Amino acid sequence: MALYVHKYGGTSVADPERIETVAKKIITAKSHGDDIVVVVSAMSGETNRLTDLAHTIQASPNSRELDVLLSTGEQVTIALLCMALEKHGQPAQPYTGSQVRIITDSSHCKARIIEIETKRILSDLKQGKVAVVAGFQGVNEAGEITTLGRGGSDTTAVALAAALKATECRIFTDVNGVYTTDPRVEPKARKLSHITFEEMLEMASLGSKVLQIRSVEFAGKYNVPLRVLSTFTEGEGTLITTEETTVEQALISGIAFNRDEAQLTAKGVPDRPGIAAKILGPIADANIEVDMIVQNTAEDNTTDFTFTVHRNDCIKALEVLESTCNELGARQASSDDSIVKVSLVGVGMRSHAGIAARMFRELAKENINIRMISTSEIKVSVVIDEKYLELAVRSLHQAFDLEATPEHAPVYC
Amino acid sequence: MALYVHKYGGTSVADPERIETVAKKIITAKSHGDDIVVVVSAMSGETNRLTDLAHTIQASPNSRELDVLLSTGEQVTIALLCMALEKHGQPAQPYTGSQVRIITDSSHCKARIIEIETKRILSDLKQGKVAVVAGFQGVNEAGEITTLGRGGSDTTAVALAAALKATECRIFTDVNGVYTTDPRVEPKARKLSHITFEEMLEMASLGSKVLQIRSVEFAGKYNVPLRVLSTFTEGEGTLITTEETTVEQALISGIAFNRDEAQLTAKGVPDRPGIAAKILGPIADANIEVDMIVQNTAEDNTTDFTFTVHRNDCIKALEVLESTCNELGARQASSDDSIVKVSLVGVGMRSHAGIAARMFRELAKENINIRMISTSEIKVSVVIDEKYLELAVRSLHQAFDLEATPEHAPVYC
Repeated sequence: MALYVHKYGGTSVADPERIETVAKKIITAKSHGDDIVVVVSAMSGETNRLTDLAHTIQASPNSRELDVLLSTGEQVTIALLCMALEKHGQPAQPYTGSQVRIITDSSHCKARIIEIETKRILSDLKQGKVAVVAGFQGVNEAGEITTLGRGGSDTTAVALAAALKATECRIFTDVNGVYTTDPRVEPKARKLSHITFEEMLEMASLGSKVLQIRSVEFAGKYNVPLRVLSTFTEGEGTLITTEETTVEQALISGIAFNRDEAQLTAKGVPDRPGIAAKILGPIADANIEVDMIVQNTAEDNTTDFTFTVHRNDCIKALEVLESTCNELGARQASSDDSIVKVSLVGVGMRSHAGIAARMFRELAKENINIRMISTSEIKVSVVIDEKYLELAVRSLHQAFDLEATPEHAPVYC
Repeated sequence: MALYVHKYGGTSVADPERIETVAKKIITAKSHGDDIVVVVSAMSGETNRLTDLAHTIQASPNSRELDVLLSTGEQVTIALLCMALEKHGQPAQPYTGSQVRIITDSSHCKARIIEIETKRILSDLKQGKVAVVAGFQGVNEAGEITTLGRGGSDTTAVALAAALKATECRIFTDVNGVYTTDPRVEPKARKLSHITFEEMLEMASLGSKVLQIRSVEFAGKYNVPLRVLSTFTEGEGTLITTEETTVEQALISGIAFNRDEAQLTAKGVPDRPGIAAKILGPIADANIEVDMIVQNTAEDNTTDFTFTVHRNDCIKALEVLESTCNELGARQASSDDSIVKVSLVGVGMRSHAGIAARMFRELAKENINIRMISTSEIKVSVVIDEKYLELAVRSLHQAFDLEATPEHAPVYC
């Protein structure tokens, strides 16, 4: 008998009707003779409603109280889903994070899971029940409610799957798998049947929003097979596993892109040791996260220094950079928020040289100017003008043979 | 240093603005140097919203899951109130019923409190914190969430006050105390400064809706001084205590009335032993609660048998009674739902004879016909035609000297 952990996100449980659909899906899975543990998010919109209530009272609410407040969202869902299951004759047991005993540290609003007790859930499964667990939440050693931060329900599901030694952790969402790239940009994008944890991590961090990065890290660390599939359509989805299980590895698995970045440049910076720290220190002090960083070799004892930040931080970052440039006697500080980052991802890169060169050649063919380059073991990222995004993604998709055969055309719900 | 338990109901915490008002009230109370433990209900409307959600999924939802669902209502309020307190610099600690450890039996949706742990709350108070406890909920020995049923937050407050040996349990509500009668019927109604538990119990069971009966019983049993006062206006409210503390006891404390009853009559019933059981047995079997019961002395070997039920049960009760009358060979079954029950309540009756007679005389003066009479040690109830309600209440109010002096005129918010 296999044990599956299912996770259903906010859109999948958005209203009583969808909760019924989820209940039926679970009952079908259970009818195959497997044990099912379900993790659910708050009904979509609920977390925002609660956050708004809190902000009406306090501009920056105490994180401990925020956890008490937000954790009610998932608690509502576990109750409603158990009712729907029982209505169709399937015994179920609702669990808050605290009732499972999902023990976390005390970092409210961004807690990390320390330990999960499995005794009660295993005993429920033995009795033929479906255990329905509130995602996103836990309890610290002092008995206070904690939450894992946005997207934390994925992490709960993976951690439970690891603790229960589940056969597979199945993340049900509103897309039917992981694609070679976003089908809204390249209609010929192909659904991947397999992808490695490492690739999925790169895809997630490069802007593909199918899974939360933390849950993928967790799954990789504990080697929990993870499957992304759709709540609303049938299909096998995409299985995310360690490299070894993938028999035939493609050169490139997918093309990720990120529209949320802005580029900042300091020109004519006096080239002295420690100049990077001098420029990025004040940016970090202003609580701005930096993604790509490029420093050109020096000419005439000056250098150009370029980095990217989240687009929302662009104006603030420019202010900080201007003041640093004045101090350092640099020539000019500038920003550009009409850029995009496009990345090729694939573990195949490890054994194949020349992927980056081929990527640059393809972009040159289309007259797309590359503004920044950054590489890692399994990805190549370039920053280009935003207006070239679709052109770049489509030409790379074709050049690297990622296209779908007709019977595998993408379905977005 | 005194310890007060405050309880704020749904209307008092209906929105973030009112929660702020409550926070300020608590801070003022704390500034007098006392320890404060607060019990709150769900924001008004929230419990109905959640119940509606459940009913969309299941016509009669499983009570265990309903408890998981409904208990989120108070959890939201404790979080928001703690935020409001902390915003104004008052440290606070939120507690769900399960976190306090309010241990109940396992009767979901109508659980009874077995035990309350006070260690954590007492330690918070020692640190100058205000403890904010979710009303209406507890946890059974198996760790499952339970609720105490509607109005259960009053019970939580009284039980906590008893467990903590509080100086007083203060129930803040939308009226500023207990009145000699409903000020909407008799504008000259006077707010009582004192009333005994027994009187309050009679008032509550006779239709006065200021406090839940269970919480008054509990307070009386554990001798917890209970005060009813307004969230929105200043004032001493009404203190409910044991008889001994009330120095000067009025003859009559108040006039209660109940518009929710209907009268059923079986005429010409053969007068045999056991006839009452024969008539009321089938009524009880139909799950209909009976309030007053009157049987007249027999004439010609037949008797008339009259009783009252909730108005909603009138039609069903008449059907049952008609079939019983046929069986017994009684002359006629009839019902009347345009009646009202009016009651005089007062522990003074114990030591003063003739209250009932005086009541009947006053009603006769106004030509009000009495249809049923029922008495207990501290109350006299009569059933009269509904159209005479206001006339009866006002004339009795005047006759028994319950009127307010101008400076004590009633304030309803």
